[in-house]
Amino acid sequence: MPERDLQYLAELAAQLRVDSVRAAAEAGSGHPTSSMSAADLMAVLFACHLRYDFDHPDNPGNDQLIFSKGHASPLLYALYKAAGAVDDEELLSFRRRGSRLEGHPTPRLPWVDVATGSLGQGLPVGVGVAMAGRLDRLPYRVWVLCGDSELAEGSIWEAAEHAGSEGLANLIAIVDVNRLGQRGPTRHGWDTGAYARRFGAFGWHTIEIDGHDPGQIDYALQDACNTRRRPTVILAKTRKGEGVLEVENREGAHGKALKDPDKAIEELGGRRNVHVEVHKPEETAQPFRFSEKPVNLPSYEVGEQVATRTAFGDTLAALGGARGDIVVLDGEVADSTKAAAFEKEFPERFFEMYIAEQQLVAAAVGLQVRGWRPYAATFAAFLTRAHDFIRMAGVSRAAIRLVGSHAGVAIGEDGPSQMGLEDLAMLRPVYGSTVLYPCDANQAVALTAAMADLEGVSYLRTTRGDTPVIYPPGERFPVGGSRVLRRSPGDRATIVAAGVTVHEALSAADDLAAAGIPVGVIDLYSVKPVDTAVLTEAATTTGNLITVEDHRLEGGLGDAVADAVSELGPRLVKLAVTGLPGSATPEEQLADAGIDRHAIADAVKRLL
Amino acid sequence: MPERDLQYLAELAAQLRVDSVRAAAEAGSGHPTSSMSAADLMAVLFACHLRYDFDHPDNPGNDQLIFSKGHASPLLYALYKAAGAVDDEELLSFRRRGSRLEGHPTPRLPWVDVATGSLGQGLPVGVGVAMAGRLDRLPYRVWVLCGDSELAEGSIWEAAEHAGSEGLANLIAIVDVNRLGQRGPTRHGWDTGAYARRFGAFGWHTIEIDGHDPGQIDYALQDACNTRRRPTVILAKTRKGEGVLEVENREGAHGKALKDPDKAIEELGGRRNVHVEVHKPEETAQPFRFSEKPVNLPSYEVGEQVATRTAFGDTLAALGGARGDIVVLDGEVADSTKAAAFEKEFPERFFEMYIAEQQLVAAAVGLQVRGWRPYAATFAAFLTRAHDFIRMAGVSRAAIRLVGSHAGVAIGEDGPSQMGLEDLAMLRPVYGSTVLYPCDANQAVALTAAMADLEGVSYLRTTRGDTPVIYPPGERFPVGGSRVLRRSPGDRATIVAAGVTVHEALSAADDLAAAGIPVGVIDLYSVKPVDTAVLTEAATTTGNLITVEDHRLEGGLGDAVADAVSELGPRLVKLAVTGLPGSATPEEQLADAGIDRHAIADAVKRLL
Repeated sequence: MPERDLQYLAELAAQLRVDSVRAAAEAGSGHPTSSMSAADLMAVLFACHLRYDFDHPDNPGNDQLIFSKGHASPLLYALYKAAGAVDDEELLSFRRRGSRLEGHPTPRLPWVDVATGSLGQGLPVGVGVAMAGRLDRLPYRVWVLCGDSELAEGSIWEAAEHAGSEGLANLIAIVDVNRLGQRGPTRHGWDTGAYARRFGAFGWHTIEIDGHDPGQIDYALQDACNTRRRPTVILAKTRKGEGVLEVENREGAHGKALKDPDKAIEELGGRRNVHVEVHKPEETAQPFRFSEKPVNLPSYEVGEQVATRTAFGDTLAALGGARGDIVVLDGEVADSTKAAAFEKEFPERFFEMYIAEQQLVAAAVGLQVRGWRPYAATFAAFLTRAHDFIRMAGVSRAAIRLVGSHAGVAIGEDGPSQMGLEDLAMLRPVYGSTVLYPCDANQAVALTAAMADLEGVSYLRTTRGDTPVIYPPGERFPVGGSRVLRRSPGDRATIVAAGVTVHEALSAADDLAAAGIPVGVIDLYSVKPVDTAVLTEAATTTGNLITVEDHRLEGGLGDAVADAVSELGPRLVKLAVTGLPGSATPEEQLADAGIDRHAIADAVKRLL
Repeated sequence: MPERDLQYLAELAAQLRVDSVRAAAEAGSGHPTSSMSAADLMAVLFACHLRYDFDHPDNPGNDQLIFSKGHASPLLYALYKAAGAVDDEELLSFRRRGSRLEGHPTPRLPWVDVATGSLGQGLPVGVGVAMAGRLDRLPYRVWVLCGDSELAEGSIWEAAEHAGSEGLANLIAIVDVNRLGQRGPTRHGWDTGAYARRFGAFGWHTIEIDGHDPGQIDYALQDACNTRRRPTVILAKTRKGEGVLEVENREGAHGKALKDPDKAIEELGGRRNVHVEVHKPEETAQPFRFSEKPVNLPSYEVGEQVATRTAFGDTLAALGGARGDIVVLDGEVADSTKAAAFEKEFPERFFEMYIAEQQLVAAAVGLQVRGWRPYAATFAAFLTRAHDFIRMAGVSRAAIRLVGSHAGVAIGEDGPSQMGLEDLAMLRPVYGSTVLYPCDANQAVALTAAMADLEGVSYLRTTRGDTPVIYPPGERFPVGGSRVLRRSPGDRATIVAAGVTVHEALSAADDLAAAGIPVGVIDLYSVKPVDTAVLTEAATTTGNLITVEDHRLEGGLGDAVADAVSELGPRLVKLAVTGLPGSATPEEQLADAGIDRHAIADAVKRLL
């Protein structure tokens, strides 16, 4: 085969280095040296092993390539150029305003499905795509290029554990062991054996090679393709900046354009015009999807006591029948989040990720790359473990559905470690996110179902304890909406609440009405986007708003309301959790935090 | 030795089980079965190996005991009772409002230094205490009781990597391999060999034992004490709920009180009155601290162009000389955060944690337990990786100093993965946190120095690019304060900014003044606590506020200002990052995000 011609592969790799140097030189910044170390690895992958249809990035048979070391973007873009997907002019637009070729790869490019650049994320996301491959029943492979520095991230070992234990043989990690991190030598330098022992212990097939020898690389990639029942990691010893004396294997040469690019290009043998013909996938089979049938969503009678987490679980179990593309991921708390209801009905679409929240979210991101609709659920408090993954999922425009149970002090005795008190503040700033917080079971049903069709990162906040059902079955709760639960012409203030505090607000309104102080109550179940129209009306009519939330004062419901009406300037009092809770019953917790009916009524009186 | 009497050890363990059952029964909740599996392990540790002075929890020679599996709190409290530190009445106050014996241990108890309950955190924090032990030059040991489920957390393997590579022989992990997680079997069940291979690959000494055999436990603990140059992990095969047929080794018995506690207590041989005499540390030596000398903080001339990250690094290097207890931790980006300036001067107090942000923060928490003053620095964006650790550090009341560089879109070409755009929203809700954001080098000096004496979690946000020095050297910037940079009686609005946007706000104010629109400018360098007095004055005089920040719209500076003045009801316009940035120059980024001088001036005109 011509592509296995060693001279050709060396020429291709040289061109990739030259183009990496050129792109960074033109931009005046970037990571050419981190690109040069991996050029041979990627040259052989593209010429001999990758199966990818650049004209049809949505071809279900395509292999997945993820640059976990996203800073090696010049190499990725040089590969795209060699494959004919971008031209030289675009290559040289690297890092310029408006260019698709950003400093780190993002899905603005049609061949990039997930943004990288926060290290240690590409491999866990690759695990998710490999899981999708099994569900899809398609033979594509997932290739992940990792740096050696990022192997220090715990998320890499969550990925190693999941892929190793599940035997994801369609996953191949290629580690560019160039010995040098950003600020100096890595912990293990060129000791590829140190990494091999670790990956081996986690059940991976390990191969140690010289990452600049095309023959060894080809052999290793073929070996990985032939490996059954185990993922493979290729640990390739390389030199950072390989091929240019000024920077080769030298400290202090990370993340900057070369000082003398012309000399470097000359050293690398000058510009070339090498094309790489990437093989297209042999099959065009459609991915498998589970059969669907008409099903009814659950419903609850008004007055029943049902936890919103229970309604979420029941709904998920129903949705699974109606939609063959829904999958559910659990952080070893499915009995608490009630995701277990889905597991019981659809065990083949339920994934136990154990207590590894970063991998939990990353797997969801990987699964949605191939068109699956993931719901990932754990305690709201423990989603903070995956904050960086959620942030990057926003950059990736990934359609993932996160569910956080056990929100707020209302969980009761377990104490602050288990209380989701910062989750709204974490989810609201995520780019393109939707944040939902139901107060009753029927509303939870509607919102859980609505999430299935949302783009981007969406989040449902559920409550541990039972709350009364206040809405009749089948009512609509559009995302971005709200419900006005109390309103009269004489209202002197409006209480805005969501979730568990809606019930406290209603009680407070009753108490206040009895005392001759009529107030309105809004159920702001959609925390983002927020119902600006209804809030504006309340702000302009009563002029006095009281927000009450089972969340910290900063970044939650109160701030969302303040933001919506800030240009109008109503008076606003925010009731939220400010102290450090201990153990107590749910009722005691709400009272101690100053967010129960009495605290709300007091706040209204104080404001007026 | 009497404490090695096997009958005595069995009696002590039985009492620990009985008291765990009793405490949970009285509370009506809790985790008795997770306590019962580890009772023998802890009985032998307390009777034979732990060195701890319960009367003097601050004795520098004390061993450290951390229940990483914090839900086994009934066992911990039963141990305290056996040691005479709490009485039976207090034991039975477990999980009640006001009790020190919370659902998960917190430092409300004098013998608990770090809160646990979010799994996978105790071992990384233990690594930090073990690092402190080396610095202290004291022979205390760090004992960490882990569950098997939590070994799925990536943070455990960040800890395994650091401790193994650094050879922290004073660290001993005891893993209670009871096979059952919350919702069912763990991934590896009783395959202690699976864990041993993993820890072994990371350089640990591994011991596999029967966790209910006091002789084996004693031998393993002694072996761990005798081990040099390597941390030890004891992998103890146990049965959850050991000793009570109703729950022993059964699924579905997690996290609830036993149905028939009286029968269980009878099965366990009834109540006892066994006392355990914990050995006190032999030494009362004081921990080592580095020598101090008078030093001058750095200063910069007004008009110079200096990045706040540079001023931070210079200040740190100066503080290191003045204070012998300051230590600095880096996430392999010290050249970028400028923490490298400290490394150069004080390499023995500088810790390279590599790209492992959870361990970075956990090590800081562990070091402060023993009185060291840690500063931990990485990119602001990557601190999101450690969100759960930061949250729990707040619960622990840990005095740690976090520094996030490369804040905002102003970093320029690198793109959104590297931009700290959610950091203020993450840090503001942390219990007891302080959030600081300097706009010039001299202010950064003052705030970096002030952080050394702050309690709780404090955060400094620094900027990548150079900004003009606007404050003379030596000025004071108290935490909770602000600086009014422009004010005149005719001000029609007030712009509130911090960091890089202060300079844009000043330019906008100049432009507006030239256009006949006088406006005030406030530098709100203390984002939490916020200067309510000054903001109130602005809100009541001009009545129009414009906030501008290089951060997302949600949860940052604008929300802090809105919160401070919400009861007054001024009109408020928030300028912040709402879109998804790509690559561009810093100036282009500020313009594209609508937070540069022109956008500010336009917003003022629109508001008026």
